[in-house]
This record gives sequence, C-alpha cells and structure tokens, in this order.
Amino acid sequence: MDLDDLLDDFREGEITKEELKREINLLEISELGDYAKLDTGRKRRAGTPEAILGEGKSPEEFSDIMIDMASNKGVGIGTRVSKDQLLELKNKNEDFELNWYEKASIVELRSEEYRSNRRIGKIGVISAGTADIEVAEEARVTAKLMGAETKRSYDVGVAGIHRLFPELKKQIDDGVEVLIVAAGRDGSLPPVVAGIVEVPVIGVPTSTGYGLGGNGRGALFSMLQSCSLLSVVNIDAGFTAGAFAAKILKSM
Amino acid sequence: MDLDDLLDDFREGEITKEELKREINLLEISELGDYAKLDTGRKRRAGTPEAILGEGKSPEEFSDIMIDMASNKGVGIGTRVSKDQLLELKNKNEDFELNWYEKASIVELRSEEYRSNRRIGKIGVISAGTADIEVAEEARVTAKLMGAETKRSYDVGVAGIHRLFPELKKQIDDGVEVLIVAAGRDGSLPPVVAGIVEVPVIGVPTSTGYGLGGNGRGALFSMLQSCSLLSVVNIDAGFTAGAFAAKILKSM
Amino acid sequence: MDLDDLLDDFREGEITKEELKREINLLEISELGDYAKLDTGRKRRAGTPEAILGEGKSPEEFSDIMIDMASNKGVGIGTRVSKDQLLELKNKNEDFELNWYEKASIVELRSEEYRSNRRIGKIGVISAGTADIEVAEEARVTAKLMGAETKRSYDVGVAGIHRLFPELKKQIDDGVEVLIVAAGRDGSLPPVVAGIVEVPVIGVPTSTGYGLGGNGRGALFSMLQSCSLLSVVNIDAGFTAGAFAAKILKSM
Amino acid sequence: MDLDDLLDDFREGEITKEELKREINLLEISELGDYAKLDTGRKRRAGTPEAILGEGKSPEEFSDIMIDMASNKGVGIGTRVSKDQLLELKNKNEDFELNWYEKASIVELRSEEYRSNRRIGKIGVISAGTADIEVAEEARVTAKLMGAETKRSYDVGVAGIHRLFPELKKQIDDGVEVLIVAAGRDGSLPPVVAGIVEVPVIGVPTSTGYGLGGNGRGALFSMLQSCSLLSVVNIDAGFTAGAFAAKILKSM
Amino acid sequence: MDLDDLLDDFREGEITKEELKREINLLEISELGDYAKLDTGRKRRAGTPEAILGEGKSPEEFSDIMIDMASNKGVGIGTRVSKDQLLELKNKNEDFELNWYEKASIVELRSEEYRSNRRIGKIGVISAGTADIEVAEEARVTAKLMGAETKRSYDVGVAGIHRLFPELKKQIDDGVEVLIVAAGRDGSLPPVVAGIVEVPVIGVPTSTGYGLGGNGRGALFSMLQSCSLLSVVNIDAGFTAGAFAAKILKSM
Amino acid sequence: MDLDDLLDDFREGEITKEELKREINLLEISELGDYAKLDTGRKRRAGTPEAILGEGKSPEEFSDIMIDMASNKGVGIGTRVSKDQLLELKNKNEDFELNWYEKASIVELRSEEYRSNRRIGKIGVISAGTADIEVAEEARVTAKLMGAETKRSYDVGVAGIHRLFPELKKQIDDGVEVLIVAAGRDGSLPPVVAGIVEVPVIGVPTSTGYGLGGNGRGALFSMLQSCSLLSVVNIDAGFTAGAFAAKILKSM
Amino acid sequence: MDLDDLLDDFREGEITKEELKREINLLEISELGDYAKLDTGRKRRAGTPEAILGEGKSPEEFSDIMIDMASNKGVGIGTRVSKDQLLELKNKNEDFELNWYEKASIVELRSEEYRSNRRIGKIGVISAGTADIEVAEEARVTAKLMGAETKRSYDVGVAGIHRLFPELKKQIDDGVEVLIVAAGRDGSLPPVVAGIVEVPVIGVPTSTGYGLGGNGRGALFSMLQSCSLLSVVNIDAGFTAGAFAAKILKSM
Amino acid sequence: MDLDDLLDDFREGEITKEELKREINLLEISELGDYAKLDTGRKRRAGTPEAILGEGKSPEEFSDIMIDMASNKGVGIGTRVSKDQLLELKNKNEDFELNWYEKASIVELRSEEYRSNRRIGKIGVISAGTADIEVAEEARVTAKLMGAETKRSYDVGVAGIHRLFPELKKQIDDGVEVLIVAAGRDGSLPPVVAGIVEVPVIGVPTSTGYGLGGNGRGALFSMLQSCSLLSVVNIDAGFTAGAFAAKILKSM
Repeated sequence: MDLDDLLDDFREGEITKEELKREINLLEISELGDYAKLDTGRKRRAGTPEAILGEGKSPEEFSDIMIDMASNKGVGIGTRVSKDQLLELKNKNEDFELNWYEKASIVELRSEEYRSNRRIGKIGVISAGTADIEVAEEARVTAKLMGAETKRSYDVGVAGIHRLFPELKKQIDDGVEVLIVAAGRDGSLPPVVAGIVEVPVIGVPTSTGYGLGGNGRGALFSMLQSCSLLSVVNIDAGFTAGAFAAKILKSM
Repeated sequence: MDLDDLLDDFREGEITKEELKREINLLEISELGDYAKLDTGRKRRAGTPEAILGEGKSPEEFSDIMIDMASNKGVGIGTRVSKDQLLELKNKNEDFELNWYEKASIVELRSEEYRSNRRIGKIGVISAGTADIEVAEEARVTAKLMGAETKRSYDVGVAGIHRLFPELKKQIDDGVEVLIVAAGRDGSLPPVVAGIVEVPVIGVPTSTGYGLGGNGRGALFSMLQSCSLLSVVNIDAGFTAGAFAAKILKSM
Repeated sequence: MDLDDLLDDFREGEITKEELKREINLLEISELGDYAKLDTGRKRRAGTPEAILGEGKSPEEFSDIMIDMASNKGVGIGTRVSKDQLLELKNKNEDFELNWYEKASIVELRSEEYRSNRRIGKIGVISAGTADIEVAEEARVTAKLMGAETKRSYDVGVAGIHRLFPELKKQIDDGVEVLIVAAGRDGSLPPVVAGIVEVPVIGVPTSTGYGLGGNGRGALFSMLQSCSLLSVVNIDAGFTAGAFAAKILKSM
Repeated sequence: MDLDDLLDDFREGEITKEELKREINLLEISELGDYAKLDTGRKRRAGTPEAILGEGKSPEEFSDIMIDMASNKGVGIGTRVSKDQLLELKNKNEDFELNWYEKASIVELRSEEYRSNRRIGKIGVISAGTADIEVAEEARVTAKLMGAETKRSYDVGVAGIHRLFPELKKQIDDGVEVLIVAAGRDGSLPPVVAGIVEVPVIGVPTSTGYGLGGNGRGALFSMLQSCSLLSVVNIDAGFTAGAFAAKILKSM
Repeated sequence: MDLDDLLDDFREGEITKEELKREINLLEISELGDYAKLDTGRKRRAGTPEAILGEGKSPEEFSDIMIDMASNKGVGIGTRVSKDQLLELKNKNEDFELNWYEKASIVELRSEEYRSNRRIGKIGVISAGTADIEVAEEARVTAKLMGAETKRSYDVGVAGIHRLFPELKKQIDDGVEVLIVAAGRDGSLPPVVAGIVEVPVIGVPTSTGYGLGGNGRGALFSMLQSCSLLSVVNIDAGFTAGAFAAKILKSM
Repeated sequence: MDLDDLLDDFREGEITKEELKREINLLEISELGDYAKLDTGRKRRAGTPEAILGEGKSPEEFSDIMIDMASNKGVGIGTRVSKDQLLELKNKNEDFELNWYEKASIVELRSEEYRSNRRIGKIGVISAGTADIEVAEEARVTAKLMGAETKRSYDVGVAGIHRLFPELKKQIDDGVEVLIVAAGRDGSLPPVVAGIVEVPVIGVPTSTGYGLGGNGRGALFSMLQSCSLLSVVNIDAGFTAGAFAAKILKSM
Repeated sequence: MDLDDLLDDFREGEITKEELKREINLLEISELGDYAKLDTGRKRRAGTPEAILGEGKSPEEFSDIMIDMASNKGVGIGTRVSKDQLLELKNKNEDFELNWYEKASIVELRSEEYRSNRRIGKIGVISAGTADIEVAEEARVTAKLMGAETKRSYDVGVAGIHRLFPELKKQIDDGVEVLIVAAGRDGSLPPVVAGIVEVPVIGVPTSTGYGLGGNGRGALFSMLQSCSLLSVVNIDAGFTAGAFAAKILKSM
Repeated sequence: MDLDDLLDDFREGEITKEELKREINLLEISELGDYAKLDTGRKRRAGTPEAILGEGKSPEEFSDIMIDMASNKGVGIGTRVSKDQLLELKNKNEDFELNWYEKASIVELRSEEYRSNRRIGKIGVISAGTADIEVAEEARVTAKLMGAETKRSYDVGVAGIHRLFPELKKQIDDGVEVLIVAAGRDGSLPPVVAGIVEVPVIGVPTSTGYGLGGNGRGALFSMLQSCSLLSVVNIDAGFTAGAFAAKILKSM
C-alpha cells in the first residue's frame, strides 16, 4: 500500500491519525532509498558517474554492465579496460556513442540525450615518469568526462627538477584550479609541487618501483608524510583522483 | 654585485652582453628563492600560514619560534600545544594577540596589522566518536584561522547511524562546501558520508583503536579503499585536512 | 591386546589389578581417539561436515577425496571447486547425488541415506559489492548445506547506503537469526549493519581492492576495529562464516 | 512544524496532498534517528548496553559519563577502569548501585529500576595462561552483566594439554552453549578447543608475547588461520567477545 | 710459492726467519680456506651434504651442478626438483646411482664409493594436514639421506586432536630422539606436541593458508611464540629442519 | 567413584563388563591429565623445569609463585627478574637455597632434596656485542640450571671477525656439543658460525638496533634466511634457546 | 621573446630597467632547466648516463627509447633487457655500436663519437651465491660502462667463509677503491666484508630467499642494521650500486 | 709455544717439516686476529674510529668504556650522549682532551699524542627540517672527527624548494666532494638533491613524522626508491652516514 492511498484513506476518515503515523514510519525505512541523497538540486544534475572497473571481469560481463549503465544513466564509464573487453563492447554496442581513451584504458558509452556537462573549470595533471602516465591519464580522462578542461605535463620528475619549473609555470599561467600529481617510486614530486603552487594538489601514488617501498608504497608513504599541503588517494587510484578533482570544481 | 649594478654597467658599456648574460645565469640559481613561488597575486595575499608543531619542542623553543613567526609573517599558528608551552608563550608574548583553542590544542599569535582573512566559504567537520574530537577540532580551527566559516557535527559514528542523517542534513542545509570527516578504529564514517553527500569529502583517520589495525591504521586503510569518493590525509593530520579544505575554497 | 581380553583375564585372575590398571593407562592414550569428541548426543547427530578445499588439488585428487568422504561420512562438501574438478568428479561419481552451486563454487556429494538436516533456523547473507558475491555465496550455500534456511541481499554497500535500509528491513522482517555480512575494500558495511540490527553479525572480509589495504586487509582491519558488535573470520573465509553461523543455530 | 500539525492541516484541507507528501519526505531524513533501529520488540528490551572505555579518560570525565549513562539508560558499564577512576566514581556516585569486578577491571552502575536481565543461557570462558585472565574476565563479566550465566576454566593452555580435557568436559557437562577462549602468544588453544567441542567457539587473542608475532599478533593470526571452526574478535577485545556471546544467546 | 719451498729455503738459510714469518702471514689469509673448517675428525667424516635448490634453475643448469657435486663430493642432493629437471638429470647421468623421492621432490645422486652413513639415530616427522606433507617429506628424506632412520605420522592436526595421541605414542614407543613437526595455517600442532613429549621438537611452518597470516606467517608466528619448548626454521624450510635434526643426532 | 572400586565391583560381579567399559571411557577423559605426559622414565626424571617470567608481575606475585614452584617441584627458576622482585623473594624465602645470576637476571630457588642434575654435556654460548650479553647469559644460565656445562665467548661479532676464530676454536677444542649464538642488529654471526662448525647451532636474535629491521627483526629475518644450517628461537628468547639446547643433550 | 632581444631593447632604451628586471624574473623560472645542473665543468663531462629499464616495456617501445637516447646523448644503457627486446633492438639499430652483456642483462648502444670515458679507478664486485650473480653483474657492467675498471669475486658467501678471505685479499691487492657486495637471504656478507676491508662498501640486497624475510627483505634489513660501516641501495638495485660506486670515483 | 720457537726448533732439526707445518696450521686459526685486517698501510693509519653508543648505557658504564677506548686507541667517540653521561665522563676523565658537540650529542675524548687526522677533503651536510638537525649534526661531527672539513645547510626542505637552490650552489661552489642529506617525513630532499648535483649523495632518513610511514619509514622507503642516484643508511644513522662519507674521501 502506498502513501497516496494512505493519505486518501486518512482524509476520508478510514484510518486514524495514529494509524497513518505508524504507517508513515514504516514507509520511511523501506523508502529511504528515494530520498537519502542529500544535496541541492544543482549538484544532483552534475552528479558523479559511477565507474565500471574492467579488471577482473569477463568481456561479456563487462559489456553487459556498460550497456546497462548507459541505458539507465545515460552514460557508462569503464576503467582499466582490456583490448578484449573493448572489442566485445564494440560488437555488442548498437545504441550509444563509444569513446575510447587508449592511454587511460578508459571507455565511455554515452547516449545522445546525455548532455555534455557544462565546463566546470580546469584541472592540471602532472606525472613524474613514463611509468606513471597510465594512472595520470586515468585521472585526466575521468576529470574530462566529468566536465573539466584538463592540461597535462608528463615526465617531469624530481630526478631532473629543471624540467619541472617551466611546466608548472605553464599550468599556473593556464589557469588550472586543481592539480593532480601522479608519481611512483620515491613519490617526491607531489610534495615538491605542493610546496610551490597555491592551488590544491592531490597526490596519486603509482604502483611502480621494486624492492622495499615498491609497488607504490614508498610513494604513498611519502605523500602521506608530505611537509607541504597534500591530500592523497590510494595507489593507482587515478579514477578517484580525477573524480575528486572534478568534484572540487563542481562544489564551488 | 647585484642585478641593478650589472644592468647599469651593461647599459653604459662597461660589460658586454655576453658577460651580462653569464652573470644573470649565475644570479638565477642563487636568487631563485625570491621568485619561485608560482601563483597569481590574488592567491599570494591569502597564502597558507605555516604551522608550528608543538610536539617535541621545549616550551622555550616553541615560544621563540612562535613569536618569530608572528613578527615576520604577521601570524603564527601552533598545533599540538601543551599546557607548558602555552604558559611560556603567554609569559613571553608582549606584542601580539594570543588566541587559544583548547580542544584543538591550537594557539594563534597575530599582529594587529594582520588583516583577518576575508570569509572564503563554509567547511563542515564531522567526527565519529568522542576520541576523534581533538583531531576534528584541529582541522576545524585550522580552517577557521585560514578564513573559513566552520560547522561541527561530533559523535555521529556509524555504530548509531540514525544520529548521522539529521546532522548531515543540517550541514548541507547550512551550505557547507567541503566536508572533513574524522574517524578512528573502523573508519567507516567517511565512506558512508561520501556516499551520501555531493560536496568533496576529506577523510582524516585518527589514532584510536588497539590491536590489529589500531592506532588509526584500520581507519586509514578503510578510507584509502573507500568505494565512495574520498581524498585522505595521514593519521591524526587534522591541520593538513583543515588547511587543505581551506585551500580548496580559496582556489576557487 | 584389547580391553575386552584384559578384563576377562582380570576377572579370571590371570592378571592382577595393578597390572590391569597399568594396561588401562596405556590404552587410554592410544584409544583416546574414540572418545575425545566432547559433546552431547544431540549435537553429534547434527555435526559440522568437513569441507574439501578444491584450490591447489588436481582434479583426480579432489574427486577421490570427495567420493571417499561421501562414502565414509554420507556427505562430502567441496569448496573453491574449478570447472575441471567438477567435470572429473561428475565422471567418477556413480553412487551419490551431486549438487553443484555455481556462484559459490561449491559441490556437494551426498548419499541417499544421508538424512537432510532438520531445519535449524534462518541466516541472512548480505554483500557490499558484486565482487563480494562469490564469498557471500560460499557462506550462504555452506549454511544451507548444514541445514539453515538462507536469505540473501547482495550489492548493498555503503557507497549507496539508501539501498541498504529496505534490504535490512526485509531480512529482519523475514526472521533471520544471524547475519553474515561480506565486504571488501573499505569493509564499512558490517560495522554499519551491526550498528542497526540486534541479531549477531559475522563479518567476512573479501580480497578485493588494490593498493594499500588491498586484498581484504583494509576490510579485515576495519571489522576488527568495529565500534559496533562484530565477530570476524579471515579474508575470503566464506565457508567458515557459513558454518559458524549454522553452528550458532544448532547449539541453541 | 511537526507531523501532527501537518496531518491536521491536510485533513482540514489547508494543504494539498502534494504539499503534505513533500513535507513528509523532508521529515523523513531529519527524523530517521527515531525509527532506524531495526529489530523486533523482544530484542529491544534485552538490548546490548554500551561500554565506556576507561582507558585514556580522566577520572572526572569517566565518572561523569558513567553517571550520565546510568541516569539515561538505567545502567552504565565501564571497562579497563583504573583505580583512580573507580575512586572518583565512588565519590561522585550517589544514586546508583555500584558493582566492581576487579580482575576484569569492569565497573557497573545500575539504577534500582533496571530490571536484572532474565537468564539468557550459559557461556563458558577458557584462558590459556595467567596473563590472559584479565581479558578473559573482561569477557566473562561482560556476558554476565548482559544476563548470561558464566563458567570459567583458566590456565589450561596447550603447553600442558592434559589439564585441558577435564576442564572442557566440565564445561560441556555444565551445559555451556557458547565458549569464549582467550589466548596470547601462540594462540593455539582456541583451534584446539574448537576441534573438540560442538558449541560455537569465539577466539580472543591477548596482547601477550614479545618478539615477532608478539603483542597478540601471533595469536590473532593463528586464530584467523584456524583449521577448526572459529570466529574471532580483535586483540584484547574481551568486551566484544563477551557481548557477542551474549548476543548469540539472546537472538535465539 | 708454497709453504714447502719456503721452509726448505729457510732451513737452507736462503731466507731469514723474518722473511719466512712475513710470508707465512701472507699465506695464512689466502690459504685459510683449507683449514677453517673447525671440527674434530669424527664429525667431518659425517659432514652435512649441501643441497642444490632446484627451484629457479633450468633443467640443464640443475643437472650439471648435480653431476658436478656427485663427482666432487661423492653425493649430490637436489631439493624442490621439477619433473623436467629430473628427466634431464636422468638423461645426463651415466655414472651415479639416482634415487628419486617423489613426495619430497628430492633427488639423490650418489657414487658407488660413497659409503652409506652409519645409522645415526631415529627422527620422527609429524605433519598437520595433507597440504603440509610435501614439506614434511622434504624434511624426512633429508634426514634419511644424512643417515637417520625416520618415522612418519601425517595428517594429525589439532582440528581432530584425538588422532594425534596414538600417533605420538607410537613415535615415542618407537624411540625417536628428535621430532620434526610441520604445520601451516594456525601452526598449533608443534606447540601442542612440544607440550607433550620430552624429545626436542623442531617446528616447520608451511606456506598454507590464505588471508591474514596466510602463506605460513600465522604458523611461523605461532611457533616463535610457543609456550612450550620449540626451535623453529623458516617457512617451507623442510631441508633445513631435516638436516638440523640429523646434525643433532650426529653431534651427540 | 574411582577405578579401584570399579574393578573390585567388576571382579565381584556387581557390574557387567559393558558397564565397566563405559565407566572406563568416562574416566579416561577426566583423568587424562595424569597420564598424558608421553615419555620414558629416564626423561621424566630429567624433565625441563618451567620458568617464571618476572616481567609484568608484582614482587609479591612473583615471590609467591616462585616459592610455590620450589615447594611443589623442588626447584623454581625466575627469568627477567627485577631488583625489587629479587629483594622481595629474599625476604619471603625461608626454606630454599637461592641462587642469583645477575647478568642473566635469573634467580633459582631450590630445595635441599632437589638432586643436582647429572652433567648432561657441554653447551657453548657466543654473543656478538655487549648489548647481546643479557640474552646470551639468560640462555647460558638456563642451560646450566638444567644440568649442562657451559662455555661463553662474548663480544665477538662479525664487525671484527678476526676476534671470532680463536674463540670458536676454543669452544670446539673444549668439546661443546651444541652452540647457542646470540646476535642483534644485522644478525650475521649465527650464519657465519654455522658455516664453520659442525655442531648444531641455535640462533637467538636480540632486540637491539633501531630504524628499519630494528628491535631484532633484522637479526631474526637474517637467521631464518641463513644459508648455513640454523634453527632459531624468537627475539630475546634466551630461556628457550638454553632449555632447547639442554633438551638436545638430554634426549641423546 | 628571448634574453638577447630584451637586452638589446634595454640598451637601446626601448624598455626600462624595471621592465627588463621583471622580464628576467619571468624568464628565470621557465628557463631554469638550462642552468639548474649544479656542478663544475669537469664533472659534467663525465656525467652519469641514464638507464632505460627494460622490464615492463614492449620490445618496440624499448628499442625506440634506446635509439633515441643514443642519438641525443651519444650513449644509451638498457637494464633488465629481455631476449625479445634485444632482438628488436638489433633489428632496428643501424647507426650505433651495440654491446650486449648477457649475465647482467644490460645492453649498451653507443655512437662512434662517444668517447670512451677515461679510466676513473677500480671497483670490486663480490657476490654471496650463484643466485646473486645477475644483480652483481648489473652493478659491475654499469660501473664499467661509466668508466671504471672492475674485478669480480663471485660465490663467496659466509656459509663457507674460508672461500671469502683469499678473494678479499686479491681484491685489495688489486687496488680496488670501492667494493660492491651483493647478497640475498641472510645478507651477512656485506657486514662481514665491511668489517674486514678499509675501502667503502656498498651493500646490494638481492631478492632471493623464501618465507619470512624472503625476497631480499632479510638481506636489506641486515645491511641497514650492519654493525660495520655500510651504505645500502634497494633490493636488486644493481644499476644504482654500480653507478653510485662510479660516482664516488669520479667525484674524487 | 710461538712461531719463533717453532722455527728455531725446525732449523735446528728438532722438529720435522711435517710437524712444523701442522703447527703452523693450528697457529693460523688462533692467530688470525692479528692479520685479518686487509688493507694497505696507508689506510690503516687513518682507520675509522669505533663509536660508543651512549643510548642504553649507564653513565658509569659509558664513561668507563670511553676512557678505556681513549687509553687504548688514542681516541674515543661517544654518540647519543645524555647530559648525565657527559657529566659523569667529565668527572671521571683526567687524562684526555674532552670535546663536546651539543647539537650532535657527540663527545670526543682524545689523547695528546693522537695526531689530528690530515685534512681528507670536504663534506656537505644538508637537512630538510629543524627536526632533522640532530641527526645531521651527528653525521657532520662524525665526519669532522674523522678528518673532513664540513659545511652545513640546514632547514632547506622541499616544502620551500626556493630556499634549497642557493644553498646547494654554495655547497658546490665551496668544493664539497660528498653530500649527506638528512630528511624525515616524506624524505623528498635527497632524491631532489641527487637529481641536481654530480657529487655522490648519501641519504639519511630521520625518525620524524607520525601516522603511516612515520618514524622515518616513509623517508627511508622514498630514498630506497629514489629515481636519482642515492645510497642510503638506516633511519637516524647519522654516525654511519658521516663515517661512510669520510671513508669515501679517505679511500681515494
């Protein structure tokens, strides 16, 4: 029995106020799902799309979820997508625009009606070494798909710090409002960058490096310990960094 | 020999262009300090004050650095300040306004000329348990000292999740633009909050809990692994969280 | 020489009481095996079947042990069974009923005489994400094979907490007496659930998530640190969770 | 404006059904607190009291919270209570019955009206060494305060396994329905016990032992890896073990 | 120039005493190799053969080292030998007796002249589960090849402790002088055994178990923390355990 | 009712053989304690005395347990004994001979009737640095109290390996049958020694060293990884090493 | 606009001194790259070539970077190069001399004009076991390619310490100025060597060994804890060790 | 009997060549101590003094060892010396020059005859923050006491990287041949410095920072992972860094 009927019954005196109130309480819990999203109308329209992690899914499974998502939400974003998953998706997909970002291993499936997000601001993405580019690109493309303009400066690690300064200057001159800095191994780049610029810097450790502190642990520890102001996401969490950066822009 | 003189010499033909260029290159490195801060004029004026960590310093040492900082920068902020350090600072300080935030263990020393920052926006701070309040307050007071309005909701952990929803609603209704969520032990609160609200959420693990995953490790791991969108700072890093949140507001 | 003969010898005066006593002492140790199981008759009848872990065994080895178990105990339960192991078992098995639970990767081999356990009560199984379903199903099917009715609520993680409440309500309305909650990554679901319901909650971390706290470590730490009342099993230990939950019902 | 008034207004036609429905939705979120506790009436009456962790609180702070709790809930339970905290509480307390359990370092404050829980069943508590007794007692007293009868068998570790069997037999003969087994260092006792008895066994690692695997890590790892059926709580988490065991009895 | 010549030269007055002494000093360092082995003659004859670890070597490499060893030392022992390595060795070997121990994955290559070691005593080997047998066999065969009689008791873990006692009794009745106990997962068997028998017990953790404390970590920690008297070798170090046990017998 | 009476009843026909057998089974479990110690008579006489760990006990508690132990077993051994515990014990003790080993922090309390163990053989104890001496002495005195002759060589670490060789030679010349080698920090001494001598070597890591691998972790890891033949006990476990070495001698 | 033009403009009065100074400041940051390398001329000529890590790159990618490097810098050094990468490079390379060091898995590509470095001194490389040779060779070949003479002593671990002394003597007699010592498992060799020789010793842990402390962790910890004077590089970091050793020679 | 006598006996025919040779072999081992130090004469004269770690020693113990060392070696160096240890040493010392380096907590005791080392070169010491100064000073004073000139640049961390460049330039201009860089928390400074200068850089992590990666772990991991060329010593190992740097200079 739904709320409409209950209210009609109440108005017509078929149930008492006490009975109605008890019913409303019961409804609340089971229907919380419809109302629990706490935000203003403006934010909801620009909501964060969910990502489908390709890793660990069969091509069929992955494609089905992607198409499902695009059908229901207007857009589906797949991350860490393999060649096989991409092929299968291309075969299965009939109705949606498919955009493939190779270096980021991200695929987007979007319906015609899905309005491109309004431009929400500009995000810079910097990476230390060539091995960090895939994660950096995952962050950058994610931010882009969420409506941000993006600017990249790759391969500017601290081992050759002279390459960093002109790139940083370009980023700032270009007006980026948030910087994502991806670095593996020693993870020194984000603390260095955050010590120079005034915009918020989000550090993304990447799973590079072998031996002790390898697989991104040294980089993550270094960022958590940073003497300059950083916030951090988990190792290889490019999607989180990109989406968080976009969220910053949107929430302003 | 400084640049002015060199340029004069050059204009007057006393040194050649080649000589001048060589000198400029030499100057660059030793004088980089004056120019390396890359930001626009508007940002610099609202720059992030450095914090003086009280922990591990003698009362004398702490007080001296604080007064020094206030003299040079117009404001000094001390974190994790002990009673002894506070007393000593009160005794030594003659020239500055001293503000003590007891629950946050933060002390501020500011000169008269130090203009209060313009209001930069509103930040909400939520904490899971009573044991998390000190870190939450460190974050909140830091943000406040950097010019943000703040709103607190403490003791609303997931063990009694019904207490969380009305508090979250109040925060959102009140217009907070960034949320800082401090939690120790299981660290479940930030992932839960970030799954509900649309504003950016910064998770701060606190060093509570004993046994495996204690001292904030479980909380930090949980936040790094969060299925909903979070960025994270280190365990007990309330100052970092507060200053980062303020930086987000300022950079917009 | 066995006890019967010794007693006869003693009654007939062929051995002294001292000799008999010494012999009894010696027997005790070597025959403890027959008596050491400490429980009342009622419990023994409903005893916990042992599981055969498929992982790491060749198809032949696995099948032989399964058939052996079914022959001796009336029932054999195989967990983490691969397709190859299942095929080989199907080929080799002639005498027993074979039940395959695909999502749980569990196979049961039971003899005709093996009386279905009496219904022992109802267990609810909740999982946070799709990646947790295999472990959740391992728990659920295990409980079911041990005689419990089971009810599942999958894909209700805290990132979208509004989906959780109606599911929890259904579980409680349905009368579940124990809840098993499987979650990986941040592992926030079990603490949240245990903060809401009054029935005992068993947390099962799953080996999902990458980076720091990945492979279920973050989830396990979070559950061990839970502010609400939880008991925990190891990462991916679905069988243990299911069998433990069934044991709770049986022991009452 | 509250629901009563809204319903009156609606019945009297002062607001439309649509207006009422929108208001109800708004109310839901802020009032969820009152309804979110999902359980049947029978369970709620026997609800789990919250524990006040003495550790890390000043005697004043601790006493205030205890008296507060007793005033509001009818009963307050303090764990890991120091001598100073106990003294202060004795001084401050005027209105409640104070029960002190020295070996468990637990204090209970209860009002006259707080009806003793009905007997809910029997719980056995076993500990390996003398160093484990405090944690074992914390578990036992907790269970007792929640209405369980308890039976203890202490100092029966596997280094002298012959002492274990008669104690186990007594426990089973006595009719315990759940066993809590506390052990530090090698943590072998819970796996051994769980391999012998049929009732559910909850393992509690204690923070004993030095060197590698010390402070309870070896014991916890061993219990998580147990070949026999165990569920586990965190190191030294006697309160959790005791309350979880009592919850099992109550939920039946 | 060697010592003989130097001494001749000295006796014949061709070099002075000082010159001879200086030369002797120089010789000492470079010739230490011949004399550094500190032991009595009896021990040396029964010396510990070195093992060739098969793991990580190509079949060719492995076979060459084995044949080399057998040629030089009279015997070669290969551990963790794969099928391919065995085949290649069988093909290449012409001169030596080849003994293959399948369950232990050990191969022995011995020359005719290599006198079988005298019997040095008896070693018992116990393992907890079927997954521990390979490591247990590596230990047992190693001890056997070094001259010990061995007695095995496999699959007698603490989950069914009643199976343990009669096996232990047989071992002791049989006169074993050292016990090797292999166990993975919770590693409870060695502490239990060492609490019962009086002969020295060597614990060997095996790399079984998943989740926290998996891969033998829980077992190793448990053995290092054992309340009863144990010495320990590293995870899966069956060869070390077997050779150490044999060394005990030999040194007596 | 005890076994004697049962046997009398049986012989006199008052109970049947079946009844007697059932009773014997029941007795077995509750009386296992008296018979479970599996060893030959010779061993039992030379059994391993239990140690009372002083650490963490009050002087009173410690003294009472020591005197109790000496009264019941004829001898009590206390390890890691503080000055206060020693004083208290000296005050309380009236009946036993008290032997204090200061460098080992071990105290022995023995009755007159407690026959000194027969000499069981000779054990050498070597330590790397001065910081390792306390643990080395704990091992040496333990072995001595269990009947071994002991020989010490301290402060002969690998940083000055030339000091090691003559000491090793003396040990071997002196006829030691087992060597205990205590080392902290890099823990290189036991692998080096075990590569030189033929007698069994037991490595004892000590909790020296700071930074990564500090507190004995580096030493323990190094010993577990040793290329030469070692068995190992936990960090600082001098008592275990000494008692294990003595057990080796006794079991021969 | 570049500096030359600016200076001309300034000299010709087209811009003021203030304008020129502002422009110089701006240039500094973007042009820092050209001047930031701080060293004297002599050092720059003998600069450290960058290594291209083969691991994780496709043969095409690897070859392209190598050729690029050789074209721009005169020399390219690839480490951890696979057979496939070598083949592809051989196919693609037309212009450069290709030198392949098989045991070190290093390939060098050098232009004709690239003058062989002057001899800079002599470096010794010692390894403990056969499993350490690849890392040792990576270090040795790296040092050699940077201009050092090298001398190797392999397979001289502490398990047979008598093999070490004559090799060390040869190294010292040969005049090595720096020693690189590679060792896995227990990592005892570098502390032993550094205790004997007076030249600086660089320890390189190798990723050998299984179980606890395996994969080089035990070796690294041991070297960090060394009682004798060592500096250390990460596990398997042969290139770093070799290049660092060469840098020592060059900087003198 | 010593070698001289043996040689005399041999020359005089009182012992045979065989007898002499056997005696020489025996002597070798016990006298190795005198000859094992493998180095050229020049090095030995400038040998590395051993440091006495004050930490963990009583003032008496510390003073005795210091005076002993100074008596035997001509110089004694104490590190991590407390005020109490210094006082006691001042009281006890009568014969030696005592030099106290307060910031480094190092004390030197030297005899008149102990010739000051010749100047061996220049070492630069850089530290990131004020909390790193003690460790930096321990390194610097150590190097100085071993004969190096030293130059310090403190408080130049990457959070304000503009302060770093002029300091680096001064160091290089000043002719330092080795750089020691001490940094805690994120440990980014050594990788940055090593990417800029050409002289060898030794990284010293300091035990600063809290939370994950605290106590120097983040810094150490970062340095081990450094993309630019570093060698590393353990956390807080200032003495090792200083002595190693001096060794580099001396060995050239």
